[in-house]
Amino acid sequence: MSGFVSFVGSGPGDPELLTLKAADRLKRADAVLFDDLSAGPILALARPGADLVGVGKRAGRPSPRQDHVSRLLVDYARAGGRVVRLKSGDGGLFGRLEEELVAVRAASIAYEIVPGIPSPFAAAAACGIPLTRRLTARRVQFVTGHDVDGRLPPDIDLAALADPKACTVVFMGQRTFPALAAALMERGLAGDTPALLAEAVGTPEQALHRLTVAALAERLAGAVSSRPALIVYGPLAELGVGFD
Amino acid sequence: MSGFVSFVGSGPGDPELLTLKAADRLKRADAVLFDDLSAGPILALARPGADLVGVGKRAGRPSPRQDHVSRLLVDYARAGGRVVRLKSGDGGLFGRLEEELVAVRAASIAYEIVPGIPSPFAAAAACGIPLTRRLTARRVQFVTGHDVDGRLPPDIDLAALADPKACTVVFMGQRTFPALAAALMERGLAGDTPALLAEAVGTPEQALHRLTVAALAERLAGAVSSRPALIVYGPLAELGVGFD
Repeated sequence: MSGFVSFVGSGPGDPELLTLKAADRLKRADAVLFDDLSAGPILALARPGADLVGVGKRAGRPSPRQDHVSRLLVDYARAGGRVVRLKSGDGGLFGRLEEELVAVRAASIAYEIVPGIPSPFAAAAACGIPLTRRLTARRVQFVTGHDVDGRLPPDIDLAALADPKACTVVFMGQRTFPALAAALMERGLAGDTPALLAEAVGTPEQALHRLTVAALAERLAGAVSSRPALIVYGPLAELGVGFD
Repeated sequence: MSGFVSFVGSGPGDPELLTLKAADRLKRADAVLFDDLSAGPILALARPGADLVGVGKRAGRPSPRQDHVSRLLVDYARAGGRVVRLKSGDGGLFGRLEEELVAVRAASIAYEIVPGIPSPFAAAAACGIPLTRRLTARRVQFVTGHDVDGRLPPDIDLAALADPKACTVVFMGQRTFPALAAALMERGLAGDTPALLAEAVGTPEQALHRLTVAALAERLAGAVSSRPALIVYGPLAELGVGFD
């Protein structure tokens, strides 16, 4: 008896953005441990009869401790089954994958990682733009906008983030963006740099907004939606579709 | 008669890493315009009878001009068909997507963008590591290692790339990495920073190597493989599998 764990990136939430490999692993799973963001219609692809176990965080509710998730994962695998650990987007991008990999390795359980569509790529596609531009946007960077205490991470590299030639994507940055934008503009980033706010990408609640860095900071200083959102700014292409 | 263009990211080359949406678009395509990197077994998923047109670049051979590709795309769509423009990885990441979007929009042809698994995420999954690490690798950045003339881009942001807390992925950087590594070490990046060389990710020729920044620079100063490769460096997790 020895189980197998597939760490599967679900993409942003739209079942059509699952990979063929992810869909296959769901179809054959004995248990699926899922985050709230990766739930919904994707779970309908799991094998009927599979255990579906929600282990995700959700704003405003207490979330299971990471060591509890790791223990569940090991317990399900030790029971001999095929376990899918479904993580939204790509599990290796701000997904706390490492802690779970360490636990599974320590338990000598075999595993694989199945990449998923990271949310920034789904957001850019939904907006109808590329993330890079020939000659003018040749660096793309992803950062988290909040630290464990909910504030802007103290070691954030402001010089790198104020580079007008980079396309920057901020995860979980709605509450801290007014402070971040002020710091970036102080370092010379133009307030009229194009910015996108992409809420609930890949779900029926998806909403896309095109603004500028200064206007987005002002908007978020007023009110922050409870929907998960990405912020993208930089020399974005003057194309784009589907904005709200 | 009016056609429709789906700009489809193929992922790194492994058909299992196509999204369900990409597979659907291939099955219904009248024509597929593909890059060399996105070819191979993925094309077997196209509708039998679809026109399969290679328009990609390949090292050492003259490549079609970008305006020729755009014109072909418009011509196929104007003929009234469903056209898939297949781009390796995610088309919006160093894929010259914008030029083709502009051409299709100028011709008033309807289109959509289907995101694909970007090669760095496939490479990290194949190596068994996440790209981010809690607290120690909280910024991820992607850059191209060569300019139109094959040299290191002159406007590359060395300070951002020398940040020891970022995970950096260099596309098309095999030939210029010795020069880049020297510049980064001059700016204080430790020579023993972990580095990966991921060749031909998602294909049967895949080869993964784990080294350090200094050792990789030395290796690439000697000989460069003709296979497409990604370079990843930064505070990478001490996990990892499948290295050659």
